[in-house]
Formats: sequence, C-alpha cells, structure tokens
Amino acid sequence: MSSKSEALAPVPERVERDLLDLARIRDPESGGWTRTVFSEPYRASREWVRSRMIDAGLDVHPDGAGNLVGVLHGRNPAAPALVTGSHTDTVESGGRFDGIVGVLGALELVRQFAEHDIRLERDLLVIDFLGEESNEFGLSCLGSRALAGELTAAHLDRRDYRGDRLGDRYTAFGLDPSGVLAASGWTAARPLHRYVELHVEQGPLLEERGVSIGVVTAITGIERMLATFAGRPDHAGTMPMGDRRDALVAAAEAVLAVRREGCGAPTHGVATTSRLSSEPGSPNVVPGTVRMHAEMRSVDSDWLSSAMRRLTEEIRLKAAGYGVEVEVEWSRDNERVPANPAVHDAISGAADTLGIAWEPVPSGATHDAVHMARLCPMGMIFVPSKAGRSHCPEEWSELDHIRTGIQVLGATIMELDRTHD
Amino acid sequence: MSSKSEALAPVPERVERDLLDLARIRDPESGGWTRTVFSEPYRASREWVRSRMIDAGLDVHPDGAGNLVGVLHGRNPAAPALVTGSHTDTVESGGRFDGIVGVLGALELVRQFAEHDIRLERDLLVIDFLGEESNEFGLSCLGSRALAGELTAAHLDRRDYRGDRLGDRYTAFGLDPSGVLAASGWTAARPLHRYVELHVEQGPLLEERGVSIGVVTAITGIERMLATFAGRPDHAGTMPMGDRRDALVAAAEAVLAVRREGCGAPTHGVATTSRLSSEPGSPNVVPGTVRMHAEMRSVDSDWLSSAMRRLTEEIRLKAAGYGVEVEVEWSRDNERVPANPAVHDAISGAADTLGIAWEPVPSGATHDAVHMARLCPMGMIFVPSKAGRSHCPEEWSELDHIRTGIQVLGATIMELDRTHD
Repeated sequence: MSSKSEALAPVPERVERDLLDLARIRDPESGGWTRTVFSEPYRASREWVRSRMIDAGLDVHPDGAGNLVGVLHGRNPAAPALVTGSHTDTVESGGRFDGIVGVLGALELVRQFAEHDIRLERDLLVIDFLGEESNEFGLSCLGSRALAGELTAAHLDRRDYRGDRLGDRYTAFGLDPSGVLAASGWTAARPLHRYVELHVEQGPLLEERGVSIGVVTAITGIERMLATFAGRPDHAGTMPMGDRRDALVAAAEAVLAVRREGCGAPTHGVATTSRLSSEPGSPNVVPGTVRMHAEMRSVDSDWLSSAMRRLTEEIRLKAAGYGVEVEVEWSRDNERVPANPAVHDAISGAADTLGIAWEPVPSGATHDAVHMARLCPMGMIFVPSKAGRSHCPEEWSELDHIRTGIQVLGATIMELDRTHD
Repeated sequence: MSSKSEALAPVPERVERDLLDLARIRDPESGGWTRTVFSEPYRASREWVRSRMIDAGLDVHPDGAGNLVGVLHGRNPAAPALVTGSHTDTVESGGRFDGIVGVLGALELVRQFAEHDIRLERDLLVIDFLGEESNEFGLSCLGSRALAGELTAAHLDRRDYRGDRLGDRYTAFGLDPSGVLAASGWTAARPLHRYVELHVEQGPLLEERGVSIGVVTAITGIERMLATFAGRPDHAGTMPMGDRRDALVAAAEAVLAVRREGCGAPTHGVATTSRLSSEPGSPNVVPGTVRMHAEMRSVDSDWLSSAMRRLTEEIRLKAAGYGVEVEVEWSRDNERVPANPAVHDAISGAADTLGIAWEPVPSGATHDAVHMARLCPMGMIFVPSKAGRSHCPEEWSELDHIRTGIQVLGATIMELDRTHD
C-alpha cells in the first residue's frame, strides 16, 4: 500500500451536498425519495449525474444500454480497465443512499485523485448502471445485466401489469432496444480488470458489531416460490368448520413454515412471504384459492437447496391436513455469487493498512456486482445502514462511514491498479 | 291439520321446468349461474318471474322498492295477510337453488291451492324480494330491508369500488330512490300476519342426518372483523429474521386463531378469514401492513360475544410477540334473529302430520326473513343441499326434497291461516 492512498481525505461536506442535490430530484407524487427507472425524475437525475461526472473530470460515454460510463484516463489506455460504480434509481418510496453512495462516492474519489495528483496506470470506469432495482417487469439490474450479455430479447418482451412491453419503455426513454441487446459489445472490445462496488449494507450487522467497513464474502442466492393453494369455496356461514377445505388457512400455515425455515438458517439465511392473494374474497365465502409469493436467500447454497426441499414438503403436508392441494413452484432469481478472493483480500488489506476495522459480511441483497462478476473479478465494500433499514424513507448511513468507505475504495483501486493477471 | 293439506301433491316436473327456465336467464360472461342484482339478466329474469306469477293466478304489484308482490286473494281481504317468498338473484358464479326454490316453490303451492280448490281465509302474498345477495355496496337484502323500513338514505349514498352510488343504480334500474325509501309504507297500511320462507339449507347438516326438512331455530348473528397489522417494511434480503416486524406473519397467526375459535364453538358457530391484503407486496420487501377481513357467526349470542373478546386478545398477543401492532375493529352485520316459536311449531307440526322427518337447525346464512321478522312473526323451512355446497355452480337440491318442502310450506300456510293473534 503506497503512502499516497493514506493521503486520500474524502471531503464529507462535498459528498453530503451531492447526496442532498440528487435527493431533490424525485417523484413528488410518491412517498420518500422515489426515482424509479424510466420515470421523468430518473431521466432528470441522470442529466445531473452526467454533469457531475464531467465536473469531476470524467470523460462520459452513455452506452447503448442506458448506463452512464465516466472514464478517468490512466497512463496506459491499452491495459484492462478498473471499474467501480453502482446505481442511482430507487424503489418506490425508497431512500437516499442505496446505490447512490457507490456512484457519488466514486465521484468524490475521482476528485481526490485529481487533488492529490494521483494518476492511475489503468483507466478507471465509473458507471451509473441503469435501473438496478426490481421493476414492474420483475427484472432487476437492467444496465449491468445488459453489459454482461445477460439481457435477452425475451426480457424485452416482458409486459407489466398494464400490458406495456419492457422494450417499449426503453424506446420511450430514448434507447434503441437493439442497441440495448448489443451493449455488451463494448465490454468484449474493452477488457475489464477488476470491479469494486461501494454500497450501503442495507442490514444491521455492521452497526451491531460497531465496525464501519464490511468486506462482502458472497452475494446471496435467491430462490423465489409461488405456491398455489386449491381448496373449495364454500358458504362461510353454513359450512361447518370440520367440513371445510380452506385455502387461506393452509396458506397461513405455510407463511409460518417459511418464517421457521428462515429462523433456522445456520449462517446468513432469510425467508420471507411477501404477498398473499385469495379468491373469491367475498366476506361470506371460504377462500377457495390462494396464491402465495415467498423467497428464500442464503450465501450457503447447500442449506438453501435443503431448506427448499424441507419447506416444500412441510407446506404440502400441512395443506393436505386441511384437504387443500398445493402446487409449489420455485424459480431461481440469482445464483449465489462469491466475491473474488483476491479482490476480497485487496479490500480487507486496504482497510488494515488504513487502520480501519472491518468484518467479512454476506450480502443479502443482489447488486450490479452479480452481473459484473461475469466480466471480471468482483468485490464489494459495505458501509453501515442505520438500524439496518433500507428501501424506505428512513434509510440512513452516517457521512463519516461513507467517508471511510470512499477511503477504502480508493486504497483498493490503487492496489488493484498495480496487480496483473 | 285438515285433510286438505295432506291432499297437496306438488308436481316436481313443473317445478323442475321452472327451475330450468329461470336458470337459462343468466350472464353469459360469468361462470355458473350468475344473475346479480341490477344486471340485465336480472331485469329479464324478473319479467319472467312476473309472468309466471300471473300464470299461477296471482295479482302482481311491483312495489316501490323493486319487490315483486303476487297476491292470492283470500276470502277476507281485511285480515292481516300471510307472506311467503324469497329471492331470485344470485351471487357471481352462483347456483340455481339459493332463494329461487322459495319463489318457485311458492308458485307451485299457489297452483296446488287452485287445483285442489283450496281457498285461504287470508290473502297470501308471494314476494320475490329485490337483491338479497350481498352486493358490491356491501349490502344484502335490499328489498326486504326496504320493506322493513331498514333501508336508509345513507345506504343509498354508499359507493362501490368504481365510485358509483347505490341510489344511482336503483335509478338506472327504473326505480325512484325516494320511492325505495318510502316502500315500507305499504306494510304499515297492510298488516302482515306471518312470514314463512322456504329455502335450501346451504350447509350439510340435513343431508348428514338423512332428513328432508329442517325447521329453523334462529338465524345466525354475524360479526365482521377488520384487523389492521402495522409492522415494518424491511429489505427481505438483508434484515435478519430476529430483527423483523413482519405484519404478514402476525396476520397468519391470526388466521389460525380465527379458525381455532370457530372449531371450538359449542353448537353452531363458524369463523372465517375471507381476505388478506398486504403491502407493499414487492418480492423483496417484508410486508409492513396487512389488512385482514374475517367474520364470526353463531346463533348463540353469548358464545359469539365471548369468542370475539378471546379472539381480539389472542390476535393482539400473538402480534405483539412479532413486534407488530394491530387494530381490531368489529362491526355487527346481523344480530341473531330467532324464529317465532309459534311459527316454528306450526312448521314442525305440519311435518309431523304429513309423516315427514324433520330436525331443528340453525341458519348460518342470513335471509330476507331477518328483515321480515321486524314486520310479523317469522319462520323458515330448509330442504337439504347436496354436500352442503352453495354460492357455487355445484349447488344442488333434489327435486324430491323440494317437493316435500312445498308440501310442508303448504300445510304450514293453511295452519297459520287459521291462527289469530
């Protein structure tokens, strides 16, 4: 670690001003800080991000997939480039830090490099990825997915609940769908060296342990479940309790079973039922059909697959006890993606040199890093989230922690700049 | 009991033809046999009912509330009149018997009286009540409620989910809302003697006990619950299980508590959760808010009120264990209405004389009889429902049981014709 990296002194007030300025660009009709992909506030915010990139001295190239790519030119343009970044879109009624810290933190780092006369050997690409949050088409990480060549024509044909096509949303946003699908071309022509993403933890572990830096070990696998319960719609006033086949009672047992399975996870594992919908819903009819959406996540793939089996079996068994049939369908949303060990060690080594306490942590959320890991070795740096809150207006990270995160990001980038495959 | 009543021989084929003819008048866009109040099929069906009333020799007076009142003139027009009838509207995707058997059965009885030269002392009113089934305005028994003077201007101001006013639906159906509110006038001017309603059981008790006649003891009280669970919407991937305040898990416990309370009822009691809705519903967010609609019914008012107290307490306690706050609101949909003992005995006496086995049964569903009980002593006759199914296309009652029901109705009417207050 060079003494130069220790000299980096990110200016919290500058980052704070950027955070506040960006937070102002939001949907006034929605709660919290709402800036969903393809919305007008999002369009406006990216003009702002683009101009802040230029202010920081980056050479900005919007790519065909809607990503904003800011290039800090290194001494050797032929060397595979370093990449950092994150996203600036939010969920509905979201917060001011998720994703945003990774983009605005990278901009402060670029300013630091300039102020301390640090010039990297490699180009450093700062990317604001298009639409990382899951959208109404059931798809997350639009921009990084496209870069990794994982966005397909079938994805563009997906329709939202209004019947609108995803491809048409791209077009309305000013992006040619064929250009979106071809966007991975530039990453093929321009080899990438390492990807490091700074992000808020979105969970309470770092705060609980009193450390300001988390070094991500792996990004969670996500398995989603749709369980369809088929009972019998009977008159709620006249059908005796013992003769019923109540789909909602069977589903309630399943909700509790999902929770128990999550609570029993040996390391990081969570299980959540996010939605139940029952039919017919009339106040005087026993629910005959229930659809239940749930998910399980873990960085332990073995536990995840055994938990899925156990849960499916328990849901079936409990439902059968109520005379209810159930179909349980699983779909893999994300396979577990481990951080690259060398990148992990570069991050933790940088923290050690700077005298900053760190903890290895799993990532329970998915990130653009999942897709960037297809292109080059990947690592992630977490900073604490107050009370672990995220995807809500109360989402908060202390500026002091963000400053520390930028310091570690800078030292890591400088270290990786010197490594060669 | 006169030998005349024993001579009544309702013709099943005639009733069957009427059932089939009426069933044909339905909404072709909906499942089962759908003829909801105010719909075009309902309008057409009531023209058919009206003409069948005239064919049977009744003098038909549609009243201001949309009820079809067919009068069989007795020898003494000044004597308080006997009333029978039911309704011919259905729930969405409903059946061919609920309500309909009471109207078409009464028409067969009127034809029997003519064929056997039986002339009553009193007028007999056969009423097809408007819209008995609960509608999208959350109101049931429109016609009988109006007759009893229990339909209010506030009811007419209710709006459905589209924002349409109930009063405007009456107007579009050709009924003047002020006339609807004034319809109870004719019952004040024209005293009623007794009300007897023939209906399908809609539950399995009679079939299970192998008897063809149920004599209703009481019509159930109905208490409806709305429980609102306030937890905290957290990121489903990053918030550890132990730190969550999951509103849906608390609601699932409540669904099971509702069921347990229903199962523990000493006599007739049922408890049903009909609907859950959770927010925000995103696949990666822990549900922060859940609204739960449930109801409890019993003909035992003491049990009902104690069960409500126990259930409220248990739901609160369980929710608190998950860090979830819950507001439980109860509203009384129907107070328990007992059958008049003398009318009950007239029905059971008629069955005994005819040599027909009967059982006293509670009514777990509400009926027009609830409101008619405000106007005069009331009783109800049930015939078995196959497997207890109702409010669904599979709803079925055997013609032979319907024939027996008409016989008992006829003998009861003849007996009550002779009673004086």
